[in-house]
Amino acid sequence: MMDRMSLTTAFTASLGLRHPIALAPMGGSAGGALAAAVSNGGGLGLVGGARGDRDWLERELALVSGQTTDPWGIGFWAWAVDAETIAWALEYEPAALMLSFGDPAPFAPLVRDAGVKLIVQVTDLDEARRALDAGADVIVAQGGEAGGHGGSRATLPFVPAVVDLVSPTPVLAAGGIADGRGLAAALALGGAGALLGTRFQTSLEALVPPEVTKALLDGRGENTERSRVLDIARGAPWPERYTARTLRNEFLDRWKDREGELAQDTAVQQAYRAAAARGDLDVVPVWAGEALDLITSVGSAAEIVADLAAEAERALASAGNG
Amino acid sequence: MMDRMSLTTAFTASLGLRHPIALAPMGGSAGGALAAAVSNGGGLGLVGGARGDRDWLERELALVSGQTTDPWGIGFWAWAVDAETIAWALEYEPAALMLSFGDPAPFAPLVRDAGVKLIVQVTDLDEARRALDAGADVIVAQGGEAGGHGGSRATLPFVPAVVDLVSPTPVLAAGGIADGRGLAAALALGGAGALLGTRFQTSLEALVPPEVTKALLDGRGENTERSRVLDIARGAPWPERYTARTLRNEFLDRWKDREGELAQDTAVQQAYRAAAARGDLDVVPVWAGEALDLITSVGSAAEIVADLAAEAERALASAGNG
Ligand SMILES: Cc1cc2nc3c(=O)[nH]c(=O)nc-3n(C[C@H](O)[C@H](O)[C@H](O)COP(=O)(O)O)c2cc1C
Ligand SMILES: Cc1cc2nc3c(=O)[nH]c(=O)nc-3n(C[C@H](O)[C@H](O)[C@H](O)COP(=O)(O)O)c2cc1C
Repeated sequence: MMDRMSLTTAFTASLGLRHPIALAPMGGSAGGALAAAVSNGGGLGLVGGARGDRDWLERELALVSGQTTDPWGIGFWAWAVDAETIAWALEYEPAALMLSFGDPAPFAPLVRDAGVKLIVQVTDLDEARRALDAGADVIVAQGGEAGGHGGSRATLPFVPAVVDLVSPTPVLAAGGIADGRGLAAALALGGAGALLGTRFQTSLEALVPPEVTKALLDGRGENTERSRVLDIARGAPWPERYTARTLRNEFLDRWKDREGELAQDTAVQQAYRAAAARGDLDVVPVWAGEALDLITSVGSAAEIVADLAAEAERALASAGNG
Repeated sequence: MMDRMSLTTAFTASLGLRHPIALAPMGGSAGGALAAAVSNGGGLGLVGGARGDRDWLERELALVSGQTTDPWGIGFWAWAVDAETIAWALEYEPAALMLSFGDPAPFAPLVRDAGVKLIVQVTDLDEARRALDAGADVIVAQGGEAGGHGGSRATLPFVPAVVDLVSPTPVLAAGGIADGRGLAAALALGGAGALLGTRFQTSLEALVPPEVTKALLDGRGENTERSRVLDIARGAPWPERYTARTLRNEFLDRWKDREGELAQDTAVQQAYRAAAARGDLDVVPVWAGEALDLITSVGSAAEIVADLAAEAERALASAGNG
């Protein structure tokens, strides 16, 4: 067995990290405390900037920059954010800025001119090519088993295909990774690390209500589903190609395969909003990925990062050794 | 960097193999020559026995048992095969018999009483539990990115979930693996090896017409799709839960999401059969998985096995080392 001091990759080298692990910039739930905890633990914490709500961001960016001196970053939805917000966020001096779900090209020069690393999340090979053209420093190859919004490729075959396309640009694997075995697999596939969402959604620092945490711990991978139904009901104008993986619930089961009808039904949409106001989990989305099967407990983000790294080293050392 | 003599696992130990690699028992295309070539190369060659056509099997089992003295096996569809055929096949003295797509319980005692290793392919956790109960010696955890029939779980998060459920029974990963990086990932995930279909479909020994080989080399992962359409058109009575991943073609695009209508339309089904008789690839299924992106050349099965093993060793040694 080989002794490793730690897992080093082009990603850890480029950002100055101790572990090849990134927190997914989960809109609303990856706040400053969670991002700082992941960064302090040696990974890259990314605040979930979503479309760019300034009030929320002011609070959370103050938190993250106050709580860590290690590199941290922030993520936005490319289809929804504007250049002004990006310029404003860059003033907080993140080490990295991540763009997901949409064309990164309009914002890429802003980020690179600020000397900030540009991370782009992609869901197919065309997006990977466009991320490369936009000058991404790191590309996140996301498979459809991921929690939250995404596409339909599966992580295991998608990551090496992206690596072959964009090499030597470092690639992070995302989707379905919740323990050290998954991180080890990401590295074995030629990835430079992994970006995790669902696993950190059950961390102590995530901005997640207790009943959602419980639903995540109880849920299994096969109880999750990709759909547009809940976005349509919410009136969230997501581009059609990015469906969301959530826990199945009553509302989703009722409207499955009837998206067109739902989009017309304003009464149901109103009822949806009333239920959402109550936080009714039979109705509102609980975003989560297939990796739920691997998540059985809540822990601090720093513990999760340390466990991931240690378990990945063990998984690599024992793979094919008996 | 560690020097490995070779990749050893509970699977290689149990079957006496040089490499933790199995050929998927692809109905019709994994004949005796391909199975023997994989076994001679140090993997486990499995003849694609499908529902158990005796004429085809007599020829192919004579070939495999004539061409290798290494362990080989045979696979059947559990939903379609009968006990008589299994008993008959066991007389050829395979080292392993694999059952996929259906309940293995009725046939398991036959296989185990013959002293033959029972391999069971599963597509969700309930099937994994039932395979364990039936006494499987090896369990194949198949993700939905696989070519051919299967389910909807993704390989990367599914494999460790199955490992946790059935340990210490060895688990092979299947679905989306076509090179040494994928094999390395399978091992990192806690798997005892990998079972590959699509990659061997483009081997020299596969019983595949040249125009299909060309379509596979030209095809990309995102050109594949899971569907029941082509099974319905063929009148193939597959259980509903096992959809098939194939290359998209004109027929599939036309009938997508209209399975009910297609099942009623006898004229279209007749037209389908006429086109199938011509081998028209705009109509007939070309079964293939998302790993197509990683397949760029035809090679002999023995070369493919050797390359997989060597590349996996390199991938494990360099993962997180750089
Ligand atoms: C609750 C939740 C919210 C998410 N929100 C975002 C988001 O706002 N922006 C983004 O780029 N990705 C978002 N994602 C997707 C992640 O970036 C990442 O691709 C995914 O979490 C990886 O798969 P995993 O959940 O299996 O770890 C979200 C994921 C989850 C689970
Ligand atoms: C052309 C083709 C035919 C297949 N036929 C069978 C079969 O008859 N029985 C079976 O158990 N699996 C069959 N499979 C599925 C494989 O067992 C295996 O799960 C799959 O090939 C793994 O994914 P991969 O294609 O990405 O390697 C087939 C797969 C392909 C590509």
